[in-house]
Amino acid sequence: MSVKSKGTKAERELLHIFWSKGFGCLRSAGSGSMKYPGPDLIASNKARVLAVECKSTKKKKQYLDEHDVNQLKEFCEIFGAEPWFAVRFARMNWLFLSLEDIEKTENGYVIDLEVAERRGLLIDEVIK
Amino acid sequence: MSVKSKGTKAERELLHIFWSKGFGCLRSAGSGSMKYPGPDLIASNKARVLAVECKSTKKKKQYLDEHDVNQLKEFCEIFGAEPWFAVRFARMNWLFLSLEDIEKTENGYVIDLEVAERRGLLIDEVIK
Repeated sequence: MSVKSKGTKAERELLHIFWSKGFGCLRSAGSGSMKYPGPDLIASNKARVLAVECKSTKKKKQYLDEHDVNQLKEFCEIFGAEPWFAVRFARMNWLFLSLEDIEKTENGYVIDLEVAERRGLLIDEVIK
Repeated sequence: MSVKSKGTKAERELLHIFWSKGFGCLRSAGSGSMKYPGPDLIASNKARVLAVECKSTKKKKQYLDEHDVNQLKEFCEIFGAEPWFAVRFARMNWLFLSLEDIEKTENGYVIDLEVAERRGLLIDEVIK
């Protein structure tokens, strides 16, 4: 499976979860290829609007480009949404991290498995 | 150009317009092919959230399936968005119609060019 189709599969998985929790959710077309900022998913239940970048990895660290982070922030300010990174490490549930919980590196950001386990929220904790 | 790529082109055109008006806007991936309801575009400027079905036609009438209309309503109730149909007839600007402004037919709904000219709103009128 290509990197792109793995990404799509992960996004769809999380989309199903949002719908099952009573949120309306859309997957963005051409996220990453458009000139505009935008998350992979947008989910809302009227009360909360969540903009979510999804990452799925078999490694113990998920790196993020500075651009990924900045464009999510920018989109959220214009659209009016909460920025979240959702990461699924191998054999684990999706963990949600806010912008404050991702670590700056020299060239971007990283979400470390151990940090994600400590600070990350399960979806039910995010939407409770 | 296929029906699908014409649809995509029209959606992208309206997406650019929303961004130019200070709205954040996403185009939905797999709109129409997913089992969930959803509009072609979702646009917001924090104050307003608009869910938009886009139609572009060279004819004088744009027909809508009952399903198109019902799924837009359903999505908007769950997500918390205003339902809109945006139609572009040949050589005209995009006209926005609310659910009250589309006419019921035996099998679905229709947006008639004359009715759209009379009742439809330009984007600046929608977002003012």
